[in-house]
Amino acid sequence: MQGLELHAIDLMKRAGKYIRQKMDQAYHIEEKTNKSDLVTEIDQHVEDLLIKGILEKYPDHLIYGEEGRIERPDTLDGTIWFVDPIDGTMNFIRQKRLFAVSIAIMIDGELRYGFVYDVMADEMFHAIKGQGAYENGIRLDPIEDRPVKEAIICMNATWVTANRRIDPNLLAPLVRDAVGTRAVGAASLELAWVAAGRVDGYITMRNMPWDYAAGQLLIEELGGRVGTIEGADMSFLEQTSVLAGSQRFVSDVLTYVQK
Amino acid sequence: MQGLELHAIDLMKRAGKYIRQKMDQAYHIEEKTNKSDLVTEIDQHVEDLLIKGILEKYPDHLIYGEEGRIERPDTLDGTIWFVDPIDGTMNFIRQKRLFAVSIAIMIDGELRYGFVYDVMADEMFHAIKGQGAYENGIRLDPIEDRPVKEAIICMNATWVTANRRIDPNLLAPLVRDAVGTRAVGAASLELAWVAAGRVDGYITMRNMPWDYAAGQLLIEELGGRVGTIEGADMSFLEQTSVLAGSQRFVSDVLTYVQK
Repeated sequence: MQGLELHAIDLMKRAGKYIRQKMDQAYHIEEKTNKSDLVTEIDQHVEDLLIKGILEKYPDHLIYGEEGRIERPDTLDGTIWFVDPIDGTMNFIRQKRLFAVSIAIMIDGELRYGFVYDVMADEMFHAIKGQGAYENGIRLDPIEDRPVKEAIICMNATWVTANRRIDPNLLAPLVRDAVGTRAVGAASLELAWVAAGRVDGYITMRNMPWDYAAGQLLIEELGGRVGTIEGADMSFLEQTSVLAGSQRFVSDVLTYVQK
Repeated sequence: MQGLELHAIDLMKRAGKYIRQKMDQAYHIEEKTNKSDLVTEIDQHVEDLLIKGILEKYPDHLIYGEEGRIERPDTLDGTIWFVDPIDGTMNFIRQKRLFAVSIAIMIDGELRYGFVYDVMADEMFHAIKGQGAYENGIRLDPIEDRPVKEAIICMNATWVTANRRIDPNLLAPLVRDAVGTRAVGAASLELAWVAAGRVDGYITMRNMPWDYAAGQLLIEELGGRVGTIEGADMSFLEQTSVLAGSQRFVSDVLTYVQK
């Protein structure tokens, strides 16, 4: 199955090259032209490139992604590609950076490959089950076991203000006790940053499998843990909360939340 | 006074080159060696480089910055350089990106020059009073007048949880109503991002003049507004809250806060 890895990376690099070219052209387009048209065009072209590229080589594989062209699977049997052509759409539109192409490959319920590609920084994070996690081909160190009080946490302010998913008073003490919080706005990238030791944890109340699956394998391959805010394992079949970091960080956060 | 601008940019570029070299070396240093020693060494060297570089050419200018070697001025008379050798220290240490060298020059109480240099991205933002604001030499467009409901706001989760500076209930509705929030962790850079249209506003309860002065001129030169969360002008002499964005964004935020 080694071909899978190379094929995925090849497709993602091609997508990245296309996006960078389009971005560069966009700077020269008259302001009057519709920016959102260009975004839609790029997003759809990247999705086409990835989906066609996968199915041409692996016609019996399933693809599970945001765009809804493919049916949501009922089970995790077979080989499933979790695909997010552009994770961090608002960053893509406004910042022209800090968005990612994210792909995870699951075989019969087991995450086997995870890829997160920060297109503008040209940083490819990848993990293979049982073989570690890498940033641009360089093996990443195990995640450092920091408790909340020594941690920088990626968590959006949304989750400590009134919202429909969680009592903001549960997470607010984390903000008080942590060294600091950050909000990047692209889940797959924030999980990759946890893997790369740039931050210590990631917490959200609302992710889909294609948002977190690739980052999850990156983190697990480095000794870390990814689950729901209730401490459960991921189902990969529905929207979920995500709590990710080292074993110690995740355990520590659960003591805050499970009161 | 045109020499001032070129001198400042030259010093900042030299500082950036030094930092990138040191960062690169750091990747090859044994993990056991003390990381914080290296950080202190880089920080102090950059400060030396900037302060000596300024005073060699302009011995009668005042320098106002974090490190405390220079007395805090009582008045804004004369020429004052607001200097932050490395804004975003935690990002510098952990992420090795998203930190900035920030310099503003004030002459007799008027902000005349502002420079924010994202070292790892090699992005130099600069503004000259009355002559516009620039990103790597390319003139930036006027800031778009978005209200809160259409805005992406840079604001740390700290300010919507219990803290000593502001009632979190005042700012929480902003998080609910905005398109999204981000937290980069480097004030000067977040203000530069407002100027560059990557986000629509920046809000904090705690900045020093060297954190915001350069970014303030960038934003003002593009038609935007920077003041305190109470709607007052900056004093440049003490710690303050900062509310920055387009005229419309700032006015809109003030209607949330002044209840």
